[in-house]
Amino acid sequence: MKQAIIFGGKSFEHEISIVSAITVAQKIPTIEIFIFLDDRHGFYLVPKGAMKASTFSSGSYKKFPKLRPIERGFETLGLWSKKLHDLEIINMIHGGDGEDGIMASLFTFYNISFIGPKTAASVISCDKFLTKLYAQGLGVKVVDYLLVRQNESFELPFEFPVIVKPLNLGSSIGVSVVKEAAGLSYALDTAFEYDSQALIEPFIDGVAEYNLAGTFCDGTWHLSMIEAPKKESFLDFDTKYLDFSRTTGAKKADILDKITDEIQMIFKRIYGTYFIGSIIRCDFFVIDEAVYLNEINPIPGSLANYLFEDIASIVTHAFHTLPQPRDIRVNYRYIDKIHASKGK
Amino acid sequence: MKQAIIFGGKSFEHEISIVSAITVAQKIPTIEIFIFLDDRHGFYLVPKGAMKASTFSSGSYKKFPKLRPIERGFETLGLWSKKLHDLEIINMIHGGDGEDGIMASLFTFYNISFIGPKTAASVISCDKFLTKLYAQGLGVKVVDYLLVRQNESFELPFEFPVIVKPLNLGSSIGVSVVKEAAGLSYALDTAFEYDSQALIEPFIDGVAEYNLAGTFCDGTWHLSMIEAPKKESFLDFDTKYLDFSRTTGAKKADILDKITDEIQMIFKRIYGTYFIGSIIRCDFFVIDEAVYLNEINPIPGSLANYLFEDIASIVTHAFHTLPQPRDIRVNYRYIDKIHASKGK
Repeated sequence: MKQAIIFGGKSFEHEISIVSAITVAQKIPTIEIFIFLDDRHGFYLVPKGAMKASTFSSGSYKKFPKLRPIERGFETLGLWSKKLHDLEIINMIHGGDGEDGIMASLFTFYNISFIGPKTAASVISCDKFLTKLYAQGLGVKVVDYLLVRQNESFELPFEFPVIVKPLNLGSSIGVSVVKEAAGLSYALDTAFEYDSQALIEPFIDGVAEYNLAGTFCDGTWHLSMIEAPKKESFLDFDTKYLDFSRTTGAKKADILDKITDEIQMIFKRIYGTYFIGSIIRCDFFVIDEAVYLNEINPIPGSLANYLFEDIASIVTHAFHTLPQPRDIRVNYRYIDKIHASKGK
Repeated sequence: MKQAIIFGGKSFEHEISIVSAITVAQKIPTIEIFIFLDDRHGFYLVPKGAMKASTFSSGSYKKFPKLRPIERGFETLGLWSKKLHDLEIINMIHGGDGEDGIMASLFTFYNISFIGPKTAASVISCDKFLTKLYAQGLGVKVVDYLLVRQNESFELPFEFPVIVKPLNLGSSIGVSVVKEAAGLSYALDTAFEYDSQALIEPFIDGVAEYNLAGTFCDGTWHLSMIEAPKKESFLDFDTKYLDFSRTTGAKKADILDKITDEIQMIFKRIYGTYFIGSIIRCDFFVIDEAVYLNEINPIPGSLANYLFEDIASIVTHAFHTLPQPRDIRVNYRYIDKIHASKGK
């Protein structure tokens, strides 16, 4: 089996996916195959030596072989097509195409092994309304929220400041903090540029935030350290962008053991059955010693490698234990029965 | 634009999808293109004249041209491939591949127009736990439930009889009614044959059940009549199977106007933004004059044609107003900025 990575995508997070992939390629030297998805949905086979940002920003990736998905892998286009089989792919497409279930579905359909959220897990974590419902359904606390649809009126059930988020994007894109009523409409317009639904939440300035990444494989939990991420007044895209290329510098958060236990327990509950096969990062708030789920990153920037002691070993473990599809045998029992009863 | 239908799929509902597609083909004569997905994930272009059950049960569909998805349509395989463009496809793949988000994702990725649930709507309606959470999140009542994972112990919070369902299948497959504690373990084993998670609910014998189908398109609601479906003590697969070939015989349910209003209001709330582009059927329970959502069928058997006065006209309306993908332009603003600051 050959370790591969897929990145890019038709999404607002296209660039950070490139940065993320380059970082992961450096941290996991066993990765041999690099598949770039451009913003016209073309797949390209990029040589390892060309894995630098300028290959993509200059458009020079277009000189590399074009690919299309086939059963159990990819093939190059053209008369003498070459098959890439026995791939194990890390899905590093952040945002659209990658985290919204599209790539997971494509890989599932073509029976391609991959590390990353499956279709349902993608939808649960990509859609912020469903994330809230899912967490609540498992008894996990979340910050209050209001779902707002474009062109629908509403009454705000909480005080300012609030934070306004498009329903389906990560990396702070389209997100605004609103200090007073006058700014709300502009913030919603911004969010609606990216999605027809938005979420409004109370904004808790200076809230204690903690990140934990992990995966369940080989019958055991591989959890990272818990980090209190550096915070600006609120992370803008430039800061986040740099965040996706992190390889070092994480420091274990200085928190009570019972908070650590609680965060780990909630992480496992959220991961549950849905996230099997993926390495995820959950972001938590702690308010009055109670732990709240803020969001699930099913494809964290550069696999949150900086939180783990040895991300390469975890990736290898994860590959070894990827969930296998159920064997579904189709027969024509009922059709045959009806034909028989009709005497045909 | 050519109207097409896709059916089959690698799923336990493969056969009923065939029956459903044949029925829809008869009810909507404008459909010209028939794409069959077999249980090995091969797409085949089936001539209209061959649209009968024996084509598929005998395997004779394999003599027809094989297809693969491409940008905006399909193409036939082989040296002189022929492109099928400007298709508008009705997704009639019930269950796996069709209702779990796989086909929706594939079509979204390849920019193919289709009537059917999008990826998120598929996941919400296919996964019975998420359906419950989604309804509750919109303030819609649902019957109590317990989520049970394979190999996990639990305490049953309600009395017998209960109904046990695999989390992700429709058409009553793997579903059992359990009258007393002794039967629970066998029922769960049955459900776990199909899914690693199951839902247990109180079984309400003889509960009043009502079905309503509809779609939102052309800026307006197209709702069907409300029917009280015929019930056996509990629908088995044979009965359901026949149900997928229904074309007539629906009778408007004899219910209070306020219940009709309530059912229609809840239908619209459930449909919301998520189900735009699809024709769905919701199944409701009425208990003590309160309306409960039982399930969402995002691809109802034979499009629930028997509930509408004119399904062909609704399909044409729906095709005319299919949601268009957002235009996402990728630029390399951040990568360029970083390069500039590095003086490269």
